[in-house]
Amino acid sequence: MLQLQKGVQLLMDNKQIPDIVVGRLPLYLRTLQKMARETIQVTSSLELGERLGISAAQIRKDLSQFGEFGKQGTGYNIPFLIERIREILHIDRVWDVAVVGAGDVGRALARYQGFADRGFRVVMIFDNNPDVIGTLVADFTVQNTAGLVEAIQNAGIKVAMVSVPADQAQSVTDQLISAGVKAILNYAPISLSVPEGVWVQYIDPAVHLQRMAFYLA
Amino acid sequence: MLQLQKGVQLLMDNKQIPDIVVGRLPLYLRTLQKMARETIQVTSSLELGERLGISAAQIRKDLSQFGEFGKQGTGYNIPFLIERIREILHIDRVWDVAVVGAGDVGRALARYQGFADRGFRVVMIFDNNPDVIGTLVADFTVQNTAGLVEAIQNAGIKVAMVSVPADQAQSVTDQLISAGVKAILNYAPISLSVPEGVWVQYIDPAVHLQRMAFYLA
Repeated sequence: MLQLQKGVQLLMDNKQIPDIVVGRLPLYLRTLQKMARETIQVTSSLELGERLGISAAQIRKDLSQFGEFGKQGTGYNIPFLIERIREILHIDRVWDVAVVGAGDVGRALARYQGFADRGFRVVMIFDNNPDVIGTLVADFTVQNTAGLVEAIQNAGIKVAMVSVPADQAQSVTDQLISAGVKAILNYAPISLSVPEGVWVQYIDPAVHLQRMAFYLA
Repeated sequence: MLQLQKGVQLLMDNKQIPDIVVGRLPLYLRTLQKMARETIQVTSSLELGERLGISAAQIRKDLSQFGEFGKQGTGYNIPFLIERIREILHIDRVWDVAVVGAGDVGRALARYQGFADRGFRVVMIFDNNPDVIGTLVADFTVQNTAGLVEAIQNAGIKVAMVSVPADQAQSVTDQLISAGVKAILNYAPISLSVPEGVWVQYIDPAVHLQRMAFYLA
């Protein structure tokens, strides 16, 4: 079932990995880290697949794109696989993250404990509401969005989460990009326009609910 | 560019539509509704594609799966297309939604204004923390999770959002399913196991950030 380990050969040109495979790696990692917390040391593509609802063949195929991870007959070494996936995803470091928009969602993100040990930490939060600027959210003083570009540029921040109203999201995004941000997680219910070399992911709960409603009678 | 309208022929067997196409319909809908608010009446697959970052050919192909929506030379009628997509997604009605977990995320969901006019409304929220049970979130009194199955069954609720800690998410999910819930939006950072006929979608900001980090130098 598992192939002989030949050493990990990371592909240098990330562009060759289909984005859909990249998208599954964080899910593999999350499950492997949960197994590690359960003090499981070794797993198989079959066991991983059952936990993830993904076929064992798919998992073997995905992981083989990045080199040979398993040893025949002994399965995948979980701590080793976790470290390799963290390297591949560039989260064997911690990325500083800015949050723009200190409403319910932004405040929840600034306080969220789930980023720890997953490669990210919120370091600043912005809002344009005079009543909110200067207030405390978690350990952060909410900063004026007017100073966003300078603050993010000075801190060298590359990752941001946008939780402003839909009609402000594109303008905030444009400012983030001019400040050097390359990856944006957008909570505003609107499609953003970004130049080549900037990545956007979307979180819109209504979109997810609508997708499932299709399958409801 | 656009084909002659032959009348909308909705497919009766939803199973024939690839899930990836179903997943794009809410994005089309969101953009069309934004255009409608801008009082735009007619659009083209080219214009839609530019707003969405999706090719015009992809949009034409997706929409053709559900019938012929456009008229040659005159483009897509936006209000008509909105209504058809709402019908296809079964959101030409309002689905009642239960929220389980009244922490930061659950409270933000209960207060979120973004579900209005998108087919869903939160109608109840649960927590198992005695300090939280009985408190007010938006207009709702937080109910004891111990009464979840009965309350959801009695209300006939089919849709739920789970925002409890990871180690409680599977047990809450099992209760929701036993109460008749068919669609679950899970905010807990864990893969859920559900039987055939139950749909799960996941929101985990760290997963989205990790996916983008792959592309960062």
